[in-house]
Amino acid sequence: MKRVFFMVMMVFLIIPFILFAQTPKKAVSPPISSQTNTCLGCHKTYTPGIVEDWLKSLHSKVTPEMALKKKPLERRMSSEKIDASLNKVVVGCYECHSLNPTKHKDNFDHMGFKINTIVSPADCATCHSVETAQYLNSKKAHAVGNLTKNPVFHALVDTVVGQKKVENSKVTQLPSTESTKHETCLACHGTEVKVQGLKEISSAMGKIKVPSLTNWPNQGVGRLNPDGTMGSCSACHPRHSFSIEVARKPYTCAQCHLDPDVPAWNVYKESKHGNIYFSKYHEWDFNSVPWKLGKDFQAPTCAACHNSLITTTDGKVVVERTHDFGARLWVRLFGLIYSHPQPVHGDTSTIKNKDGLPLPTTFTGEVATSGLISKDEQNLRQSKMQGFCKSCHSSQWTANHFTKLDNTIKEVDGMILSSTLMLLEAWKNNLAEGFIHGKNPFDDAIEQMWIRQWLFYGNSIKYSSAMTGAPDYATFKNGWWNMGENLQNMKDWIEFKKNVKGSEKR
Amino acid sequence: MKRVFFMVMMVFLIIPFILFAQTPKKAVSPPISSQTNTCLGCHKTYTPGIVEDWLKSLHSKVTPEMALKKKPLERRMSSEKIDASLNKVVVGCYECHSLNPTKHKDNFDHMGFKINTIVSPADCATCHSVETAQYLNSKKAHAVGNLTKNPVFHALVDTVVGQKKVENSKVTQLPSTESTKHETCLACHGTEVKVQGLKEISSAMGKIKVPSLTNWPNQGVGRLNPDGTMGSCSACHPRHSFSIEVARKPYTCAQCHLDPDVPAWNVYKESKHGNIYFSKYHEWDFNSVPWKLGKDFQAPTCAACHNSLITTTDGKVVVERTHDFGARLWVRLFGLIYSHPQPVHGDTSTIKNKDGLPLPTTFTGEVATSGLISKDEQNLRQSKMQGFCKSCHSSQWTANHFTKLDNTIKEVDGMILSSTLMLLEAWKNNLAEGFIHGKNPFDDAIEQMWIRQWLFYGNSIKYSSAMTGAPDYATFKNGWWNMGENLQNMKDWIEFKKNVKGSEKR
Amino acid sequence: MKRVFFMVMMVFLIIPFILFAQTPKKAVSPPISSQTNTCLGCHKTYTPGIVEDWLKSLHSKVTPEMALKKKPLERRMSSEKIDASLNKVVVGCYECHSLNPTKHKDNFDHMGFKINTIVSPADCATCHSVETAQYLNSKKAHAVGNLTKNPVFHALVDTVVGQKKVENSKVTQLPSTESTKHETCLACHGTEVKVQGLKEISSAMGKIKVPSLTNWPNQGVGRLNPDGTMGSCSACHPRHSFSIEVARKPYTCAQCHLDPDVPAWNVYKESKHGNIYFSKYHEWDFNSVPWKLGKDFQAPTCAACHNSLITTTDGKVVVERTHDFGARLWVRLFGLIYSHPQPVHGDTSTIKNKDGLPLPTTFTGEVATSGLISKDEQNLRQSKMQGFCKSCHSSQWTANHFTKLDNTIKEVDGMILSSTLMLLEAWKNNLAEGFIHGKNPFDDAIEQMWIRQWLFYGNSIKYSSAMTGAPDYATFKNGWWNMGENLQNMKDWIEFKKNVKGSEKR
Repeated sequence: MKRVFFMVMMVFLIIPFILFAQTPKKAVSPPISSQTNTCLGCHKTYTPGIVEDWLKSLHSKVTPEMALKKKPLERRMSSEKIDASLNKVVVGCYECHSLNPTKHKDNFDHMGFKINTIVSPADCATCHSVETAQYLNSKKAHAVGNLTKNPVFHALVDTVVGQKKVENSKVTQLPSTESTKHETCLACHGTEVKVQGLKEISSAMGKIKVPSLTNWPNQGVGRLNPDGTMGSCSACHPRHSFSIEVARKPYTCAQCHLDPDVPAWNVYKESKHGNIYFSKYHEWDFNSVPWKLGKDFQAPTCAACHNSLITTTDGKVVVERTHDFGARLWVRLFGLIYSHPQPVHGDTSTIKNKDGLPLPTTFTGEVATSGLISKDEQNLRQSKMQGFCKSCHSSQWTANHFTKLDNTIKEVDGMILSSTLMLLEAWKNNLAEGFIHGKNPFDDAIEQMWIRQWLFYGNSIKYSSAMTGAPDYATFKNGWWNMGENLQNMKDWIEFKKNVKGSEKR
Repeated sequence: MKRVFFMVMMVFLIIPFILFAQTPKKAVSPPISSQTNTCLGCHKTYTPGIVEDWLKSLHSKVTPEMALKKKPLERRMSSEKIDASLNKVVVGCYECHSLNPTKHKDNFDHMGFKINTIVSPADCATCHSVETAQYLNSKKAHAVGNLTKNPVFHALVDTVVGQKKVENSKVTQLPSTESTKHETCLACHGTEVKVQGLKEISSAMGKIKVPSLTNWPNQGVGRLNPDGTMGSCSACHPRHSFSIEVARKPYTCAQCHLDPDVPAWNVYKESKHGNIYFSKYHEWDFNSVPWKLGKDFQAPTCAACHNSLITTTDGKVVVERTHDFGARLWVRLFGLIYSHPQPVHGDTSTIKNKDGLPLPTTFTGEVATSGLISKDEQNLRQSKMQGFCKSCHSSQWTANHFTKLDNTIKEVDGMILSSTLMLLEAWKNNLAEGFIHGKNPFDDAIEQMWIRQWLFYGNSIKYSSAMTGAPDYATFKNGWWNMGENLQNMKDWIEFKKNVKGSEKR
Repeated sequence: MKRVFFMVMMVFLIIPFILFAQTPKKAVSPPISSQTNTCLGCHKTYTPGIVEDWLKSLHSKVTPEMALKKKPLERRMSSEKIDASLNKVVVGCYECHSLNPTKHKDNFDHMGFKINTIVSPADCATCHSVETAQYLNSKKAHAVGNLTKNPVFHALVDTVVGQKKVENSKVTQLPSTESTKHETCLACHGTEVKVQGLKEISSAMGKIKVPSLTNWPNQGVGRLNPDGTMGSCSACHPRHSFSIEVARKPYTCAQCHLDPDVPAWNVYKESKHGNIYFSKYHEWDFNSVPWKLGKDFQAPTCAACHNSLITTTDGKVVVERTHDFGARLWVRLFGLIYSHPQPVHGDTSTIKNKDGLPLPTTFTGEVATSGLISKDEQNLRQSKMQGFCKSCHSSQWTANHFTKLDNTIKEVDGMILSSTLMLLEAWKNNLAEGFIHGKNPFDDAIEQMWIRQWLFYGNSIKYSSAMTGAPDYATFKNGWWNMGENLQNMKDWIEFKKNVKGSEKR
């Protein structure tokens, strides 16, 4: 009887074992550093949103040591060796906000700790060194200087976002203010964040002193940081969740790459790729590393074509990861006025055209002879991009697409040249004052019509062609329709202005 | 042996117990009233979509008595006491469509029941009294009168949506029709729904008589209902699912708050908040009450900043719920022409400017001296909003954002003033007829260019600044670019018109 | 004891049975043909995206024999009998790409198989014969000829997308190129794909010969295929997943039906239907056949109103499936210039107006007397559509909506007529050259303003009215505002041009 009892008991004992055999063991959470624990102690009360965001991030769940144990293709960390002090704790507040303190002009005493306000790409490079190095060579990293160190571009900025005063029907242009540039051009390009001493602020803990920052907040891609670095990783991996999913979803790129001037997002939305993305993304995996084509996603997002490490389901690499966002691009659809080969360096402020202006082409479309990549490099990059296309499209399909794009660039640049010739007519007849008078080429009505041709309409058509879709963006929505109509308007404007001039003489 | 058998049987008996121990007991559905059951009997055949919608709603699953048992912060009902006849049945067809019958001019005999066609805010107030009371003080509730009782606004409506006839190249304006106003301005603002007796209609059940309603259907926020009330709860909690999720998602607000005139939705989409929303909302909980910051959502939607009760994960209230949609707003970005402090009451039709016009500012930007909230009240409201921002952003970040917004409002209103000066030039020279001639200030081409400055472009820049993002809406998409270009066009128009006038004299 | 042991063993044996009783048996995959297996052998390496896409499709999981066993309303296949060679294998590469080889000019020898590059509607008809037959009568199937065989439409195409040259401020129009038409108008309408012999291409397997295709790639709805058929099923059921979910989601229609010319998508997004869709679609079932109202979806998408078989939850048919996309439409909002009854046939190129022009109305709005459906047919189709509306809306609601639409069409066509009268004024005064001079009516600035009236603004208002929502599309966003403003601009343009002409004479 005892044995029977024993056996029956065994059954009881065995049931939960069977029941829960497949339940994963609750993992022991990796350790949080004591410093970070102190941060969390207060900030979970004072900035609960930041703490919750971090708690949902991988950074709160993984130590560098754990991350380094992944197979090469699965690794999210590119640095091979991490300082012992960081290696065995999760990546918390203190681990990021305390790095390289001597370089950080924004470092300050905060509750007994030396804290940097802004975590810079150099800090992120501790674990993500390859990505940071790649990024530094991209146009994105140089986005501030490329705008502000180029007098032509800067004249455009001032003309667009500077205030205008009116007196006796005359319009006077004022220089643009930092505050307005900060939320227009520099919101995407990045501001220069400088430390102007400490200031006392009222916080929930009472008065505390913090570094007083200019042009802050800002997450522009080329932000100039108080530690002397360029860039803002949180532009694409926002705030404290550092999400690869967010960066891979097109909404992130969409914040800056949108119509009317850079209509990549708008074109994507209306393309077949976009159609499939919006219909099916709920079944895809945007967190998987590497990103497996066909399994994790069925149609590309921005990141798939331009950035991500893509493999097949059986682990064959289709394209390598890059954080130099132009690395797979051979032609620059939008530099200024006309298309041209991609620049060699991310810093484009040194490129000069034949006329000595800091532009990649002349006013009539002649391409600069240096600073731009060679035909061979163009071919190499295009073949990289084509390699990715061919994962889902036949060779002929792919080749024809690229041929079509070449033709479109040629036709659109031809339309822009026609518009430039119209503008020159206005200048020659002194109906507007521009380059040839040594004056602002961006402030008269006809000059602004001309800007629309390349900055809005030309770009729409080229992007629509390049991203194989969005026919309405090539046709009626900032496309061919608008280029043609606008050219007629330029012609009529000249006619009306000549008439006014003629009347003045009579 | 018997005992062995008994024990083994015990094991058998115990297995299902173990297996299903964690399965929640199937709840007994709360009762449906007999009247509602009668409604459902026919309507599941004749309007199956309505019935299915209701079946998915909380209203079909919960009685007021159950709802009142929730902890205070978790309650979705604000009325403390409910009539016994409603308390123990779910909130069905009859419970809502039979309330306050004597007040409802749209009440009619329907298959033996006295039914109201339209459920009004006063009916919803039976259970949701606090929300209804808050709503009644909002500008939304007064959206019809604010438009139709203001002769300036109404002139704008007529000019925009009235038909135009052409004879000998002359344009004649006809007054706008009810039907067209109904699907343009009043689609958002609300129509006046009146009962014009009964009419016989052909339904699936044969001929039946129903109240004949004017300007119906309509779900405008300030709809004037046949029971004398203002508003339409289904504007944001659509149809028969009465969803808090739908109201919290930004698509709801987007139906009316969109470009070119109120580009809140467009700006949100392109902001960092929007980027995070679109990337991560599939993991958030939009039905949770209270709405827990960081846990239920990681970035705000419209409702989070303007309406919802928000708490931390541990139940600390961050902001209180309000259905007065301006309660956390200190400045009105868009009233008419220039920004100004929020109005004291939702009914803005009584505000007068210094010149006696029913506007919150003069034509050149001077703010009205009464009817608008005080500086103290502005500060109070701004600090409420800032309190919410600081859940995720530092004090400095938050303060700098609001300083930037103040500057933007000033600069944009300056640009609008420049445009107004240009318009005055046209009026003074009799190139167009407007206010100073006692004529329609909205119908000439230069007047319409001027309207664009404040109604489209100024609003875009201000919203973009206020919602911290969408730099392209501040720059090229209805932003600074368009304000500057349009001002040039106003100048040229004056020049061309003067020339025509001069020629006529010659 | 033995028996005790036996009984205890029984318990052990029974546990897994209880545990896994509800786990579905792993289905045995239906067979793949040997030919398709050969295709997959290489293509999983060379075009892995295509193979993965197919693996996720129903085609890879179901044989025609299995599909035919479904109950009538649940069937996704309309052909009643399938050739034995196809019946018992899944629908793989070879099953689709080998059909009707003698008709396919794009058939070629590929690794020992006779393969068609392009799968045409006639091939899909093998299993989906009813859908293909319906489609052939739709305007979509005839979308190429309707554009290219109509000289008026074709003049518009050439004017819009042809290059313009400028010399001495004169604009010269060049004919449009195939390449540009291919990515503008014909991207939606469809290209003519012809085979020009074989060409050698470099593939991952080395040099291979494939049919050289013109105007390829293209997925326009009316594509002219190398087997002589019209249409492209993959326009809406993209690539190799052949998804009903993708076709039912509005992003698919959105690729072509979007603003400014066909703003169905834009209007939907901002309508109440769209609001509910975007807020709740994650809980809906887009793969269910039939599509059950209220259960599978709570608000219609494009497909629900125009195409899908819709039933109630208890299987009552609300509307039948159709692939003739105009079958539930009575009025054509956008043909050319004015609205008119839907055409009788999908081929509209034969319709002539009273003046002999290939248009459904005259220049001043008189409707053609043949080729358009009768009043009775209009009523029949409208009642079909109303029947669907009434699933969720009352009879009065529905009736009032359609009355409002009728009025809107009348008012908008009146505005277009006003604009046409303005244009005629310009022509009569020789300020622009158009129809009455036997010249291009689309290339002068005032002609383009006139085009905007009906092609952009009129359509926006009409679509907004028809789809009951999006008040901003009827008001400020390409709506009444723009129609009125543009009419003023037409008037001013005439004034300025007359002045120039007068000056020339003086």
